[in-house]
Amino acid sequence: MLVQRKGRMVVIEGCSVDIDHAVNSLRRLGASRVLVQSPLGLRKIAARVGQILAEKGFDVAFSSSNCWGGCDIAYHEAAAMGADALIHLGHTPFLKKDRTQTIYLECRYAEDGALKSLVPEITETVKGFASVGVGSSVQWLDCLKVVVEELRRVGLKVLTAKPSMHAVETAQVLGCDVSALKTLENSVETYLVVGSVFHALGIALLTSKPCFAADPHTQKVKNLWEMRERILRQRHYNIERFKKCQNVAVLVSVKPGQKKLGLARRINSMLKNYGKNSCILAADEITPSTILENTFEAFVNTACPRLSIEDQSQFSKPVILPAEAMVAMNALSWEEVVDEGLLMYPWGWTGGQAADKFWRPLRMVTT
Amino acid sequence: MLVQRKGRMVVIEGCSVDIDHAVNSLRRLGASRVLVQSPLGLRKIAARVGQILAEKGFDVAFSSSNCWGGCDIAYHEAAAMGADALIHLGHTPFLKKDRTQTIYLECRYAEDGALKSLVPEITETVKGFASVGVGSSVQWLDCLKVVVEELRRVGLKVLTAKPSMHAVETAQVLGCDVSALKTLENSVETYLVVGSVFHALGIALLTSKPCFAADPHTQKVKNLWEMRERILRQRHYNIERFKKCQNVAVLVSVKPGQKKLGLARRINSMLKNYGKNSCILAADEITPSTILENTFEAFVNTACPRLSIEDQSQFSKPVILPAEAMVAMNALSWEEVVDEGLLMYPWGWTGGQAADKFWRPLRMVTT
Repeated sequence: MLVQRKGRMVVIEGCSVDIDHAVNSLRRLGASRVLVQSPLGLRKIAARVGQILAEKGFDVAFSSSNCWGGCDIAYHEAAAMGADALIHLGHTPFLKKDRTQTIYLECRYAEDGALKSLVPEITETVKGFASVGVGSSVQWLDCLKVVVEELRRVGLKVLTAKPSMHAVETAQVLGCDVSALKTLENSVETYLVVGSVFHALGIALLTSKPCFAADPHTQKVKNLWEMRERILRQRHYNIERFKKCQNVAVLVSVKPGQKKLGLARRINSMLKNYGKNSCILAADEITPSTILENTFEAFVNTACPRLSIEDQSQFSKPVILPAEAMVAMNALSWEEVVDEGLLMYPWGWTGGQAADKFWRPLRMVTT
Repeated sequence: MLVQRKGRMVVIEGCSVDIDHAVNSLRRLGASRVLVQSPLGLRKIAARVGQILAEKGFDVAFSSSNCWGGCDIAYHEAAAMGADALIHLGHTPFLKKDRTQTIYLECRYAEDGALKSLVPEITETVKGFASVGVGSSVQWLDCLKVVVEELRRVGLKVLTAKPSMHAVETAQVLGCDVSALKTLENSVETYLVVGSVFHALGIALLTSKPCFAADPHTQKVKNLWEMRERILRQRHYNIERFKKCQNVAVLVSVKPGQKKLGLARRINSMLKNYGKNSCILAADEITPSTILENTFEAFVNTACPRLSIEDQSQFSKPVILPAEAMVAMNALSWEEVVDEGLLMYPWGWTGGQAADKFWRPLRMVTT
């Protein structure tokens, strides 16, 4: 079934794209030179969007760089290219303010067939629970109804919620923001995330409730408990490795939505007070070669938390998260981090008390 | 022998580093927050320089990003990090004006032993010629004397010259600037470049005279003719592949010294006039994944020319140079490009006539 959405959507490569919104916005802004940015997976859609805009008379260039999320907007490239406006594909707005006028064009799947055919397995998987919190990557949001309706039909209490951090839509999860699910923790027995394992792993790491990823592309429903436990063991192992390192660096991303310079400076000071040789290391794209060829033995990563979670195995040295650094300095216990969901960005979705545990020691240092 | 240089040099990891110059310059600028940038190969020196500056009271952070030359200055990171000044290691100034106050700290080898032990092989290799043009990467400049003196002693005419493009010192060559050698073409029978094969290959591609790389690290003197011929064959093959592609993109780097937006826009227009579907593709770090996952079949590279020359084999699609694009459009012949040394940046070191051949067709297009 073709999912209906507001506005006159064009379907490109199976995704609804609101070209009218882009054209009208660019005209309203008086923009003529436009930079089109997209994550690698949406480059074909980007090419078509750019082509349509060029046909409408806009002077279009594309960004070839990686794009890891709504946190990673190509303001720098746009400025260098003299672009009046950015068209950013595939993510909802993450930043409160854009340095270059940015039009966010979501690319939601227009067809719910792949998800529909997964519904029986989803139902079979979660029917033993009385209640389920449902989330989704932005791509699948328009199709979510088929899951919610069927689960309700078989008698489950199905809850969705508004996120409170960077995600925008009800039920939407980002790699770093599962607040739309975390907020339901006292009301549901389990979680279901429609999208990739990547999108479901976020909540799985921050709750001890069972979490399932339903991925229409792979046609699989996956219980994430084993993966969660494996990753938490890896994280703990890397905290232990970090403790033994003397020369460490605190990574600060210069990507507009990943830059946490104040946090990094506080952690850096805390590490020095704790007796480490620590310094600040600026980064844009973080790759094994760019960080490993430095002289540091270990890193604290204040950039994208998923870098530590997904890519640690690529790095021969520990790349631990801020909360993990607090554990390494005995300012938090590992059990607190795990039990209270402090691993990623604890200030976003935890109640005041839990977030305060994270911030209290940091507030006490001078930078 | 320890090579003596002006100022009070500190020897770090075998290289002379003018720390006093850095400290005095930072103080004169009133800088307190400093970003230290270095190519991957100099990260240990960077760590030590940063440590010394921190001991002097500066608030030091490091850049973890790749750094490919004096063209690739981390102004963007410096601004994002709130740095007052940049310390840039290992390259001479390339840009006419710095967006952030930048102190260029060369890292020349302080010991000429490795080069000295290569002198007999160098002499043996070039003694059959009456005259030789000598160049060097900036790293070996202080040691060059041992080669020049010995070659003169055995009766060769040894010439060095001032560069006319981006390099600064007499005899200095960069990956993209061999003007200090090219200008000697009518006066010498052969060329010798002290440094890596990378540094010697530049002149080898732009002249039909014999070129030799003398690399003190590998203790080898290498005749570059075969490599030159192989690369020229590869380049020609990629021009032929490019001709068959309909959807192409013109790569524009946003790196401050690599950005050639005006040139790119002219080539883009020329390609469109020629019947291609062409567009502009902005890039910072150019990697196989970032460019290949686009929908384009081939690329014109207006960024670092060495990307096409060294890294073509990493890319499954043609990544041709501006002059090669002119060949693909029949605006230049391949023989002209090879015989007149137009392959890389022809406007830099060729006489007015040759450069004019490159620019004339481009001047005629409107963008």
